[in-house]
Amino acid sequence: MSDLSVIGRPTPKKDGAEKVTGRTRFLHDLELPRMLHGRILRAALPHARIVRIDTSRARALPGVVSVITGTDVEQHPFGFVKDHLALKRGKVRCIRDEVAAVAAETSALAEEALALIEVQYDELPAVFSPAAALAAGAPLVHEDVGTNVTALRYQFTHGDVDRAWADAAAVVEGEYTLNFVTPACLGTMVAIADWDPEGRLTMWSATQVPFLYQRDLAHALGVSGDRVRVLQPPVGGNFGRGLDLYPIDVIAALLARRARRPVKIEFDRVEEFVACPTREPCRIRLRTAAAADGRLLARDAHVTVDNGAYVSWGSTTPYVMLATVAGLYRCPSVRFDTTIVYTNNPYSGSMRGYGNLESTFAVECQMDELADRLGMDRLELRRRNAIKPGDVNPQGFIVTSCAMRECLDAVGDEIRRAAPPLAPGWKRGVGYAGMFHVGGGARIYRSDGCGAIVKLDDFGRVSLITGASEIGQGSETVLAMIVAETLGVPLERVDVVNSDTAVKPWDVGVHASRTTFIAGNAARLAAEKIRARLVEVAAEQLEASPGELALKDGWVFVRAEPGRRLAYERVVRAGHLRERGVSFVAEAFYDPPTEMLDKDLRGNVSATYGFAAQAVMLDVDVATGQVHVRRVISAHDVGRALNPLAAEGQIHGGIHMGLGYALSERLVVEDGQIFTSSFMDYAILRADDMPDITVRFIESVDAEGPFGAKGLGESGVIPVSAAVANALKDALGVAFTELPITPARIHAAVSR
Amino acid sequence: MSDLSVIGRPTPKKDGAEKVTGRTRFLHDLELPRMLHGRILRAALPHARIVRIDTSRARALPGVVSVITGTDVEQHPFGFVKDHLALKRGKVRCIRDEVAAVAAETSALAEEALALIEVQYDELPAVFSPAAALAAGAPLVHEDVGTNVTALRYQFTHGDVDRAWADAAAVVEGEYTLNFVTPACLGTMVAIADWDPEGRLTMWSATQVPFLYQRDLAHALGVSGDRVRVLQPPVGGNFGRGLDLYPIDVIAALLARRARRPVKIEFDRVEEFVACPTREPCRIRLRTAAAADGRLLARDAHVTVDNGAYVSWGSTTPYVMLATVAGLYRCPSVRFDTTIVYTNNPYSGSMRGYGNLESTFAVECQMDELADRLGMDRLELRRRNAIKPGDVNPQGFIVTSCAMRECLDAVGDEIRRAAPPLAPGWKRGVGYAGMFHVGGGARIYRSDGCGAIVKLDDFGRVSLITGASEIGQGSETVLAMIVAETLGVPLERVDVVNSDTAVKPWDVGVHASRTTFIAGNAARLAAEKIRARLVEVAAEQLEASPGELALKDGWVFVRAEPGRRLAYERVVRAGHLRERGVSFVAEAFYDPPTEMLDKDLRGNVSATYGFAAQAVMLDVDVATGQVHVRRVISAHDVGRALNPLAAEGQIHGGIHMGLGYALSERLVVEDGQIFTSSFMDYAILRADDMPDITVRFIESVDAEGPFGAKGLGESGVIPVSAAVANALKDALGVAFTELPITPARIHAAVSR
Repeated sequence: MSDLSVIGRPTPKKDGAEKVTGRTRFLHDLELPRMLHGRILRAALPHARIVRIDTSRARALPGVVSVITGTDVEQHPFGFVKDHLALKRGKVRCIRDEVAAVAAETSALAEEALALIEVQYDELPAVFSPAAALAAGAPLVHEDVGTNVTALRYQFTHGDVDRAWADAAAVVEGEYTLNFVTPACLGTMVAIADWDPEGRLTMWSATQVPFLYQRDLAHALGVSGDRVRVLQPPVGGNFGRGLDLYPIDVIAALLARRARRPVKIEFDRVEEFVACPTREPCRIRLRTAAAADGRLLARDAHVTVDNGAYVSWGSTTPYVMLATVAGLYRCPSVRFDTTIVYTNNPYSGSMRGYGNLESTFAVECQMDELADRLGMDRLELRRRNAIKPGDVNPQGFIVTSCAMRECLDAVGDEIRRAAPPLAPGWKRGVGYAGMFHVGGGARIYRSDGCGAIVKLDDFGRVSLITGASEIGQGSETVLAMIVAETLGVPLERVDVVNSDTAVKPWDVGVHASRTTFIAGNAARLAAEKIRARLVEVAAEQLEASPGELALKDGWVFVRAEPGRRLAYERVVRAGHLRERGVSFVAEAFYDPPTEMLDKDLRGNVSATYGFAAQAVMLDVDVATGQVHVRRVISAHDVGRALNPLAAEGQIHGGIHMGLGYALSERLVVEDGQIFTSSFMDYAILRADDMPDITVRFIESVDAEGPFGAKGLGESGVIPVSAAVANALKDALGVAFTELPITPARIHAAVSR
Repeated sequence: MSDLSVIGRPTPKKDGAEKVTGRTRFLHDLELPRMLHGRILRAALPHARIVRIDTSRARALPGVVSVITGTDVEQHPFGFVKDHLALKRGKVRCIRDEVAAVAAETSALAEEALALIEVQYDELPAVFSPAAALAAGAPLVHEDVGTNVTALRYQFTHGDVDRAWADAAAVVEGEYTLNFVTPACLGTMVAIADWDPEGRLTMWSATQVPFLYQRDLAHALGVSGDRVRVLQPPVGGNFGRGLDLYPIDVIAALLARRARRPVKIEFDRVEEFVACPTREPCRIRLRTAAAADGRLLARDAHVTVDNGAYVSWGSTTPYVMLATVAGLYRCPSVRFDTTIVYTNNPYSGSMRGYGNLESTFAVECQMDELADRLGMDRLELRRRNAIKPGDVNPQGFIVTSCAMRECLDAVGDEIRRAAPPLAPGWKRGVGYAGMFHVGGGARIYRSDGCGAIVKLDDFGRVSLITGASEIGQGSETVLAMIVAETLGVPLERVDVVNSDTAVKPWDVGVHASRTTFIAGNAARLAAEKIRARLVEVAAEQLEASPGELALKDGWVFVRAEPGRRLAYERVVRAGHLRERGVSFVAEAFYDPPTEMLDKDLRGNVSATYGFAAQAVMLDVDVATGQVHVRRVISAHDVGRALNPLAAEGQIHGGIHMGLGYALSERLVVEDGQIFTSSFMDYAILRADDMPDITVRFIESVDAEGPFGAKGLGESGVIPVSAAVANALKDALGVAFTELPITPARIHAAVSR
């Protein structure tokens, strides 16, 4: 495949020029004729009975069109276990809870009206941690459930774990604490709802799973799914936030239905910190056993999740935590269990990495501990346990292409290459961590498919209508590249259409790093059909047999005689512009050869798996605990880097997010209250906080992936915090088991 | 086909509720961020050299962003013979000519700026009629052409015409004069242009031929076709106006390119009368010969067209005039010729009926004259000459389904049925006219094809992505009905997507009454593929063989045991939501089995032909010439009326337009100036001017048409003026050969 024209070349994003010139019309920018502005009144207390809501003064405010509460609209429970009403009835269970909403002519009027709504509460005792929630006699978050333990539990066992402890040369054990973080998207949450006179709803949404959103929203509103059309204008980040339905969406639709006018709800930054779902806070108790030669013998993990007030898709992250415990390095015996507990804290959602950051943190911290215990080189221990092509892991994941070992070697080589000078009073450490994640989709729904339609017009303009969604990850560009390469046409001739459920084919959305792999394969298959048709029509024109023809750079030509050629758009015109014409439209659907996990959590969920390793070099000021990350090396088995520029961008972005998770980001939640309200409080890293980053792609060229690619969107973020903790331990000799590892925490640990 | 569920039922338009509740967002309503408003400065004289244009004062006006003239932009000639520049250089040739354009922050500012542009002209002698233009030494409209006769000429001959005159029992001859009329769309012309930073243009346009418009606009701007994307928001009427590219489109794009901001040009009503293309004014000299038994022997026609300053698609209407002369009634010998002459009048465009109103007026007036001359019943003469199934006409048109005779019988029966009382001093007349038009597309371009994509989502929402365009004719509804019937699902489950060239498949646009037939067949073919897939997946689910299954009313069921059934959306979900899933997306392309006319104007251009007959009963006040049309009977061979409500609506609308053409509408053009400037001057009929209308559909069930249908969009308007003239002759004994037949003209004729 050395003759690839488009694939493998560093390619700027198709939407880049629009974005940098400020022309992109984001969801936020959208205004509809007669549109009202909605605002939401939230709970004043984290756990309380709603005694009375008086909206009369709000209703009387001129410019206010609708005021709704939980009791005066038709709504149905939604969420992963259907325990959630958009507008609360009876009681509030966390500080984020929605008790009333207003639609008014302006946002300021709506805000003013909120202040006029009087809610009388009867405060209830509350639980703000799993420990408190599990205590005997604890107040119940959901009385009807009868316990604070949610219905979700993930139990897995493979091999003889208990025997392993006895056989082991070393056993390490620890508890790891992961706190609230938030995606901190620059674009806050927005929902715009518009009903037509026939009772059909159009939603402009930040969702990243439009067809599932369509289903869930319809259900929450008590209409059939075919009544909901979802449009997805450009968004300013999502990172998993768009995987669930949220009250904002339902409330926008309820207000619009009541007002009979379009309604837009747009969070400001304060509300975004309060109401945007977070990464799942949890504690992981992990125990690992190894033989004297370093071979892992067993792992046993128990995860306690602070689920918050409602169960979201975020509560299913233990699926992925298990995959890491069982699959990051060879491990013959594995036990895994969870306790997922309702509290009166804000609930979580899905976030990039989806549990894998948390479990990788625990697993990789213990790898270093084991190496120390066994007196073995930390990288060597990892090499000895690295997954290899052909492995089938305890869950039944079938490893095909795999360059884990090469990734470990690459970061080991690269981190030794250059060392910046060390400031006096500072100590330096180097830490490593590996990464294992799905790379060929993930059958977490019964479907993992995506459809594609490719259409050519008379002028050679190629439209790819894909089920996939663009949330800033660059999927439009890479999908266009796949089509351009398959058709042999210049990339700029390919448009991507991807933002309207009435137009695009079925897909299960952006998650599990699946878009390049799944949507890419669908696009490739559809483009191959068009390619065949182009060859067929050109063969007539060129008086050659189809087998003799090739396509490249916009030409269809006789391979043996490249001067005999036609511009492909002329071939299209030859097809269109004749009696009994043919057209150039083709569709394809790709659903990977994978299985859902069975009740025992076994099954090959992904068509291939991604592997990576990172090395972090950091300096720490022993006096203050300040950390200066100097270098991050990130080596990734990506199958093939279809767009190396975007792939590297994904890694850079992931490292940015991972370093924040490791060192600085924390959404402060105390007694159920959220105290973080701006980027002054919530410390995402700035450009000048970022280290020197080296990205290495190891191309294992996956047999099933489009042009050999596998998923990459989450790989960069996953190992960072483990590598940082390991580097700090290397520098200071102290193990950190809670994130973020702030200067204060370092200072305290060093002073201990 | 008696078990049709959707087809054949009177069905309100899908966009009806949106429109009557004022929610439709028309092209006029569209506002883009940073959008500027464009206005056009037109010629002050109908024929003059442009000596100098001084735009400095306009440029200096605050709020004016761009001012352009013909000499300071890159532009290329466009139009049917490429004789037209959007912004004129060197000279102006008619009063409509564009000499400069302004883009400003508001429309009022742009208007103000126009007044500040100083143009110095050097007036030239002008020609305002074909006669003047053909006179020796006449000033030339296009000096480079070297003559005022355009390059277009339509010559046809078949049989021995000259011999027929000798053999005939009766020969009639006359000259028929057809004047300027305008489509008078309630939505004026609008063009919105927006260039992206990469030099790609998006146009929001009233075009009805988006892919041809894309080509022509790109050419006029000197960019490749793939740089132009065309979006088609709802328009307030078109009636053929959207078949050409016009200066408004090119100028909007030129202004936007210059300003680097979106630009909208919207005509007000005055400008619409001035600048909207008209129906082609012409004179038809016609001679018809018949045998004693009424059989037609020959026709000889010569058409002189006042082409105006530029050649548009409207100048090709003689194609259709010929088809009527040769094909409306059996006629063994035919001669046809044209003289198409440049003048300094405004130029014409395409308009519903496309030449057929004009030629039908001439042909049908002579049918009555012949009947009188032969002493034969007027309907009987027509019956004897009616086209029959299996006929091949002089041009080689192959008649398949044909109920011409039944249409004539139907209007004859119906008109005798009821007669309202006649007022004293008034006379009553009844007139008849037949109609012949393409009904299965018309291969006027090399392609007559249309593509369709049908997609089902998980909830049973069906999207038809069609190449066809909706311009108010109801195509969305009838295409949705075809898909609903084919799939056996309720109509309300079907959406139509049809307004974006980046999404929709190839099509050659709305013309020649082709949409139901051509786009309908494409939609049917795509839906049949989906139907087959539904049956296949349902067969697995129901444990039946595909052959045993049927689809109806949203159910897939075992024909012999209707209780064994699945809702079709469950079948879709069964396909999507499984390992190795399948999706429900299919595409099809339909290009009818027809030929382009050859150089001798022979060839079977349409896959089937439409036939109709009308009877008009009218009363005329002899003293004043006032006409009161009492009844119109319109009988149409439509193959099958897929949506009888919409079909009847098309006929009603056509009769409205035809009566205006016959009796009241005239765009007053004198010495190249347009004097009509409002609906006070331009007398379209109001609701209370309309007669009692009876529509009869004769269903010949065409073998090639979708569910037996043929095209109908133009049938209603075509015969009206002839039937009115014949009724007036019946009442008054006076033949009228010029339209409109105003009270003044009647009064003059009666008083003569």
